[in-house]
Amino acid sequence: MINSKMYELGTKKSTIRTIFEFGRKRAMEVGEDNIFDFSLGNPNVPTPKFVKDAIVDILETLPPSKVHGYTVAPGNPRVREILAKSLSDKFSTNLEGKNLFLTAGAAAAITISFKALAEDQDEFVTFAPYFPEYKVFVESVGAKLIVIPAQTSDWQIDFDKFESSLNSHTKAVIINSPNNPSGAIYSRETLEKLAEILKKKSSEFGHPIFIISDEPYREIAYDLEVPYVPQIYSDTLVCYSYSKSFSLPGERIGYIIVPDEIADFEKIYGAIAGAARVLTHVNAPSLWQLVIARCAGKPSDISTYERNGKILYEGLISAGFECVKPQGAFYLFPKALESDDEAFCERAKKFDLLLVPGKDFGCPGYFRAAYCIKTETIERSIPKFKLLAEEYLK
Amino acid sequence: MINSKMYELGTKKSTIRTIFEFGRKRAMEVGEDNIFDFSLGNPNVPTPKFVKDAIVDILETLPPSKVHGYTVAPGNPRVREILAKSLSDKFSTNLEGKNLFLTAGAAAAITISFKALAEDQDEFVTFAPYFPEYKVFVESVGAKLIVIPAQTSDWQIDFDKFESSLNSHTKAVIINSPNNPSGAIYSRETLEKLAEILKKKSSEFGHPIFIISDEPYREIAYDLEVPYVPQIYSDTLVCYSYSKSFSLPGERIGYIIVPDEIADFEKIYGAIAGAARVLTHVNAPSLWQLVIARCAGKPSDISTYERNGKILYEGLISAGFECVKPQGAFYLFPKALESDDEAFCERAKKFDLLLVPGKDFGCPGYFRAAYCIKTETIERSIPKFKLLAEEYLK
Repeated sequence: MINSKMYELGTKKSTIRTIFEFGRKRAMEVGEDNIFDFSLGNPNVPTPKFVKDAIVDILETLPPSKVHGYTVAPGNPRVREILAKSLSDKFSTNLEGKNLFLTAGAAAAITISFKALAEDQDEFVTFAPYFPEYKVFVESVGAKLIVIPAQTSDWQIDFDKFESSLNSHTKAVIINSPNNPSGAIYSRETLEKLAEILKKKSSEFGHPIFIISDEPYREIAYDLEVPYVPQIYSDTLVCYSYSKSFSLPGERIGYIIVPDEIADFEKIYGAIAGAARVLTHVNAPSLWQLVIARCAGKPSDISTYERNGKILYEGLISAGFECVKPQGAFYLFPKALESDDEAFCERAKKFDLLLVPGKDFGCPGYFRAAYCIKTETIERSIPKFKLLAEEYLK
Repeated sequence: MINSKMYELGTKKSTIRTIFEFGRKRAMEVGEDNIFDFSLGNPNVPTPKFVKDAIVDILETLPPSKVHGYTVAPGNPRVREILAKSLSDKFSTNLEGKNLFLTAGAAAAITISFKALAEDQDEFVTFAPYFPEYKVFVESVGAKLIVIPAQTSDWQIDFDKFESSLNSHTKAVIINSPNNPSGAIYSRETLEKLAEILKKKSSEFGHPIFIISDEPYREIAYDLEVPYVPQIYSDTLVCYSYSKSFSLPGERIGYIIVPDEIADFEKIYGAIAGAARVLTHVNAPSLWQLVIARCAGKPSDISTYERNGKILYEGLISAGFECVKPQGAFYLFPKALESDDEAFCERAKKFDLLLVPGKDFGCPGYFRAAYCIKTETIERSIPKFKLLAEEYLK
């Protein structure tokens, strides 16, 4: 009577959601302050005041039809010009308005890109640990997601495993740096090596293999450079969202960059417009288009995330955990203290530490801790992590 | 290299768009005042001031994380409760928050509904004249759109043709009242007859045939009642948008009503959640969720559309056109003065009258005139329509 696949996708609770709901229940029993909920990747830094100021100014100065009317499908042309100029200054590149397609956030941006590119039997490759919705979104456009096992030493890329996965059906490689859940950033060296292999394989297979660079965490990077991928590999679509950088996850605003240098710009941009149409993204929310233009180039406040990451990292190390240093995003992805990460996370609950098993991200044996929560909660969680670690020494 | 179907959907210009662009060019030659552009269904009544007041009040009184944070996929529970209460009062029914699923406008609402319901080989039935995107959206979920020829005398339903189109593959019937493009409203009698046939056929085929009631123009109705369809036929999903009622087409905010009485509520609501997920509507824009809750039950200003419709209708009748009286939405759909509606619309251009051929809406021999434009422009267009009509008397 209904589409049972949709029912399954709409009702099967994610592990993260289940943990979060457990936390809400538990908080009622032991009090909010005694729960250490590291489960959700929901930005806790307040939306910057300049966003509110921009909204009020737009409402005061523009007629409603200019604010709330339909825009053309790729987005308000003047907004795209302003963003292109800002991005060109930032990345020393040559973007124009026509290189941008505004979207309802990064989920829409990546899925529109998948749908624009995907043909029968296509494969999209990504690297563990990875954002689990990739699988849902890639399969929803009729393609297959191939996951390359993690390089756990530094969360860069295991190139041997990667290269051997490529074949004539490979349409694109999905990267996510800074990464959810590892918190790592791909170095320029990693991206150059990736580009080298893709150039070789594209030529071998006689068609381009694209990079789809999912960058919602681009602005949340502590010390390391986040390279602009199209300058390293031209067949790249950059997918961006303001969800994390300006703490606007509910508003659904972002964009796709389609660089001039990409193979057949006109065909790809056209297919993106078609994909947005059938996914019923008529246009990105129009008020938000104007807001991001007014806020173009304004800084993200990452000081809280940086402080939180440092405190949690140092606490975990002192408790005896193995963990790669925080580089960006707002996640740590330490090694679990037993090989069964689900059993480990279950055990952590005894101390009201709510952690997400690495298995959920295609990387068993590890766990994700989202540190976009109160600094004080993180500080008070450290003794709990120590108690948890002691359990394993008994 | 790319998905050619997406390219085609993203680049093939619609007739309406082509006419609109012609109008922009022509306006540069002859001046804005000398173009009578009836092509676009873009609301011209300003967004009500209470919308702006609501936005400012929300920004002043709530913390940013409550305004701009993720909501659960179906939408903020408190917002859904408020809307359900308001709708229950309006329609004397018993909706609760759980009966609503907030969406990014009506395009998302209907396509999510299609995708939630569509299985292999399914057919969705609609009635000419119809909104051309129905075909794109229905085909995008893998189903087939069946179009019942128009009942041109009054734009109600030709039930003989309708009944003979139903078969075991029929999943749902899409209705749109007040209608784009006919401007007609389905009477209670029409809906009761429709329900009677659907009940009979559902029982004959052993599965429910749903109604998907696409109602973005519900509030734009002049004298006639717009019945609440679930009270007449319980297997109905109501799809609504604030695009027209509050002149917010660019903001993408609306909802689906899933009544308790529908066959297998839980399955359908779950499948809707899954469909929204794969169409990457993570949640309806969060600020707009709060805005529509604050504006629940507030009136739409339809006086301009009513006045415009009357002036245009009387002008057309006096010029010798045949046309059903305006009932709602902001369209008239008169008979063209020759059987070839495209040739007729081409001829109208000589007088700078920009009209859309009925063929585009599955109803050749007629044309659409969208009267959501300046009243004064409509007044000045009447002599032009008279000159056009005289051409056919020569």
